Amino acid sequence: MSERIWTAGLAVIGDEILSGRTQDKNVAQLAVWLNVQGIRLSEVRMVADRTSAIVEAVNTLRTRYDYCFTTGGIGPTHDDITVDAIAEGLGVPVVVHPEARAMLEAHYETRGGLTDARLRMARVPQGAGLIPNRMSGAPGIRHGNIFILAGVPHITAGMLEALTGTLEGGRPLVSRTVGCWVPESEVADLLRAVEREHRGESCDAAVAIGSYPFFREGRVGANFVVRGADPDAVDRCLSDLTERLKVAGYAVGSDGI
Amino acid sequence: MSERIWTAGLAVIGDEILSGRTQDKNVAQLAVWLNVQGIRLSEVRMVADRTSAIVEAVNTLRTRYDYCFTTGGIGPTHDDITVDAIAEGLGVPVVVHPEARAMLEAHYETRGGLTDARLRMARVPQGAGLIPNRMSGAPGIRHGNIFILAGVPHITAGMLEALTGTLEGGRPLVSRTVGCWVPESEVADLLRAVEREHRGESCDAAVAIGSYPFFREGRVGANFVVRGADPDAVDRCLSDLTERLKVAGYAVGSDGI
Repeated sequence: MSERIWTAGLAVIGDEILSGRTQDKNVAQLAVWLNVQGIRLSEVRMVADRTSAIVEAVNTLRTRYDYCFTTGGIGPTHDDITVDAIAEGLGVPVVVHPEARAMLEAHYETRGGLTDARLRMARVPQGAGLIPNRMSGAPGIRHGNIFILAGVPHITAGMLEALTGTLEGGRPLVSRTVGCWVPESEVADLLRAVEREHRGESCDAAVAIGSYPFFREGRVGANFVVRGADPDAVDRCLSDLTERLKVAGYAVGSDGI
Repeated sequence: MSERIWTAGLAVIGDEILSGRTQDKNVAQLAVWLNVQGIRLSEVRMVADRTSAIVEAVNTLRTRYDYCFTTGGIGPTHDDITVDAIAEGLGVPVVVHPEARAMLEAHYETRGGLTDARLRMARVPQGAGLIPNRMSGAPGIRHGNIFILAGVPHITAGMLEALTGTLEGGRPLVSRTVGCWVPESEVADLLRAVEREHRGESCDAAVAIGSYPFFREGRVGANFVVRGADPDAVDRCLSDLTERLKVAGYAVGSDGI
């Protein structure tokens, strides 16, 4: 029995990411949140604050995956061009969303009023809805399967919280880890064999094993992560892998090391 | 006088990044290193451990930019498929590099010997050269304008160190920051005007201003980052911006806040 797998792409927008000034946190944050919604993050593109780059990334991701998320570029300043670029990519005009305008008016009432620059944050691609933002005045934007979020991680987090449970997804991706004090190259054949035996018939029952080496306390080791949508299949694979590592004589940490 | 701008793309390869298990550090690390080499990181793609995804990303980035870097997927285990995927994308076979094989033999001589799994790390797309790795046994790989690096950040760092000064680049991207205790929306017009006045005739003299708001010590503020390849143009723009912020009555931190 095969189940539909729901997928998402993410466009991280901003010169500050590509210059190395800012360490992105939104990829990991969105990935973890999507897993809980039963949606898999399948691809990320990081692009500059340039219209053509944003259009290409968003148009590819929105047609290739069930959902397309963007972070960054929705503030009040001249370098915030995400909304304009996405509207251009969709072939729709940019309009002021009346509800967003009202939100901003309320927010800035005691903060110097709604200037032209601030009103920029009420602009949306025509046909869009809003995503609530508890953290600051300006809302996120939803247009079809595109979700336009803030770039500042704690504001992004608030918008994701508002979206929790509202998107259709499948079963969450489950992952379980077993750690082992072993150079991964010593058990490469064992890993490959176990993964092959647990490869399901249908896509949904499939499990994959990832191997992540580390060097710690003067010793080498690796964590092996079993991932899949079917918790039973993941558990079976994990216990088989753990057993074989033990039989081979390795010290195993059942929750990773 | 216009100067050639050198560009690079990066493909970050690995399920662990897209699942949110691992927080990527290589984007920022590579970006900062590239700036020093006079090369701009222009685009990043993060893809899964899947051949078709890797082929698409690398073939796009290597033809679009002067240099294409990849991180991840060059270890000894079954989920390390970067070399095979890139060879497929280039239309060349995978061969064992004799020098890499010798390096691995030396490295594993006192560590249990060179097994088949470990020998995987000597495999390269035909025609490739090696990038030294001081940190662990397996080298990085260079094929034309493609640089295949490790995913573990401190090993990536060692490979970048080995490449320092070996790639042709232009002038480093210079950036200077002025910080201000102001909501960015209050000075959006001022920023836009200053950037417009300092937009150079040639691409090389161009400066761009980025605005990065924060909320700290109960107050809002923003750092304004002026970027460009011409240090004089960047300095002129920064001093003009600083002066105008002061004239407008704001408290300014000359190195950012």
